[in-house]
Amino acid sequence: MKPTIRIEYCPKCGWMLRAAYMAQELLTTFTDDVYGITLQPSEISGRYTIYVDNELVFDRKREGRFPEIKELKQLVRNKVNPEKFLGHSDSK
Amino acid sequence: MKPTIRIEYCPKCGWMLRAAYMAQELLTTFTDDVYGITLQPSEISGRYTIYVDNELVFDRKREGRFPEIKELKQLVRNKVNPEKFLGHSDSK
Repeated sequence: MKPTIRIEYCPKCGWMLRAAYMAQELLTTFTDDVYGITLQPSEISGRYTIYVDNELVFDRKREGRFPEIKELKQLVRNKVNPEKFLGHSDSK
Repeated sequence: MKPTIRIEYCPKCGWMLRAAYMAQELLTTFTDDVYGITLQPSEISGRYTIYVDNELVFDRKREGRFPEIKELKQLVRNKVNPEKFLGHSDSK
């Protein structure tokens, strides 16, 4: 079974569009590497966390910011397909 | 556990944006009624199917078309929260 990515977001914070945007970025890059991406409205205020198969890879609370897309793709790549080259998303 | 909606789409057909759009419509309407919505790239060409907890509620192949949003919200509502009134999405 391919991994599932999950983005848990605070809907009251207005982060649904952001979560959906990031899901589309990840689906574009990892079409063949993932089972799917789940968008999950959180009941916890301020929550914006991203998981690969329930393993936390990004937590807005801990980082004090949202992830950059390049960074997020690297984090996900390292879990779902470590050999994958991300092109310009791999440079510094 | 609240129900999970899953949209399985054919990425080679270019239906990712459509699936993401429908997910956002459903998340806007059913924020508190669902656990989440999974976008699943299909390995089957031409696939565009929508499930509520793995129960098929729409199949593009069978219908010969994509669902309208109003129709989709009614189909999902009937499974996840039959009492919910959908406003203008409930009129004919």
